[in-house]
Amino acid sequence: MKARIFIGETTVDVIPADDRGLAYGDGVFETMRVHASMLPLWPRHRKRLMLGAQQLGLALPRINVIEAHISEAIAGVDAGVLKLLVTRGSGGRGYAPPADPVSMWMLTLHPLPSTSSIGLRLHCCQIRLAAQPALAGIKHCNRLEQVLARAECDQAGCDEGLMLSTAGDVVCATAANLLILREGRWTTPPVEASGVAGVCRGWLIEQGLVAIGMLTPHEVETADALALCNALRGILPVSSLGTHEYHQHPAVAALQTQLAAAFPMFQVHKEVA
Amino acid sequence: MKARIFIGETTVDVIPADDRGLAYGDGVFETMRVHASMLPLWPRHRKRLMLGAQQLGLALPRINVIEAHISEAIAGVDAGVLKLLVTRGSGGRGYAPPADPVSMWMLTLHPLPSTSSIGLRLHCCQIRLAAQPALAGIKHCNRLEQVLARAECDQAGCDEGLMLSTAGDVVCATAANLLILREGRWTTPPVEASGVAGVCRGWLIEQGLVAIGMLTPHEVETADALALCNALRGILPVSSLGTHEYHQHPAVAALQTQLAAAFPMFQVHKEVA
Repeated sequence: MKARIFIGETTVDVIPADDRGLAYGDGVFETMRVHASMLPLWPRHRKRLMLGAQQLGLALPRINVIEAHISEAIAGVDAGVLKLLVTRGSGGRGYAPPADPVSMWMLTLHPLPSTSSIGLRLHCCQIRLAAQPALAGIKHCNRLEQVLARAECDQAGCDEGLMLSTAGDVVCATAANLLILREGRWTTPPVEASGVAGVCRGWLIEQGLVAIGMLTPHEVETADALALCNALRGILPVSSLGTHEYHQHPAVAALQTQLAAAFPMFQVHKEVA
Repeated sequence: MKARIFIGETTVDVIPADDRGLAYGDGVFETMRVHASMLPLWPRHRKRLMLGAQQLGLALPRINVIEAHISEAIAGVDAGVLKLLVTRGSGGRGYAPPADPVSMWMLTLHPLPSTSSIGLRLHCCQIRLAAQPALAGIKHCNRLEQVLARAECDQAGCDEGLMLSTAGDVVCATAANLLILREGRWTTPPVEASGVAGVCRGWLIEQGLVAIGMLTPHEVETADALALCNALRGILPVSSLGTHEYHQHPAVAALQTQLAAAFPMFQVHKEVA
């Protein structure tokens, strides 16, 4: 992984040992799909990045400088993933943010994850998401809950995991938002207390294709169909949650078609199961 | 800040850009007081470090290797702070921990914070601590709540902050545990849902000097005395919480004396206010 590392607007070779991202997860990130040397969802990622930085009181480098380096990084890349990480930069020991921090940021390219049209098997994660309104929605770097949840999924031999809040409501998957179909309508849980406001989720809501609503585990189990969505893989059908199985549903394919009409990179190539 | 950086048992020059501590706060740390080329509280820090690593499923390097490098780092240091950070090491993009991770760890020396015998002014933090039993007690690197709380304290012109849980109970300060005196008895809140099991707090509890008990903000406000404790500064008197003022109380000095009898590095040098 070749990283492009910057401090403020200066290119540097290494990550300073006193970086606050490393010390405290004091930063935000975006993981974005590259398509034909472009980031089709960039305006949405940029918006969430700026919101996250504002919520954490973190000074971002000038956006046009970030954008210029992104263009350089993805030039000639037909398909892939670009990760942008921004931390508060160097700091002294201790939680207090420095008076005049200069952010450290980094661009890295990664291969596109495989996008299977075969349904995902979900594990129902033991670890729950704590309710923290001050951090919910944004894509900050405090991700131990997701790391532990993901380790559970691997242990269970599943592709992804369903995460509940400590209050017992359904929130999301470890790295995707959840969509459930009941009576012909798609619903996704709110992310005001925990979870991340995914950019694909945001688009689906804006289009009126998905509504926000609280969901109990029972409503998810007894749904007509389940799907996950994120900015890298679009909409992914779910085939099982624990021992519950879901049949292929035409509404999932319809949603995939609508997303692909707006963002052709999400076109689904059907496979033989 | 000169850092000694290691991957597994090998010394390296730089922090890999794909370190999971940087990406997700996927690590644990200990901040320890150096006294006469020793870490008097090391056995307690080591215990919490190992517990944290176990809870996160993080493979630690062999403890005797860590200890050898610590000895080297603090040789000749009369007084100071040694920070040990251990992350899960390098990983691919995505939350899933790698199958066979090799931890990255780092030792850094810092100056001792000033230990004033004049009472601390506490701010009552707006941000609350989320309840997460899977992460409570251990000293992991997901510290955005503390960073935001600490920023609030600076803004309020206070020395430290009182943190409540989202449920409304009192938990701790941003970088110290809380001790409150009522009817001649010291109490400190539990850390099963949020907060860190401080090593100084642990010693005080083991000695029977402090009991664990739930505390409401009202009980704290109306306490006879407040103090903070941590592994760097021992026991610190509190002079105010918001607009509430606390008088100097001999019980605080008595606790300081008891701690200093066991750990002479915590001897308090009285100042003129």
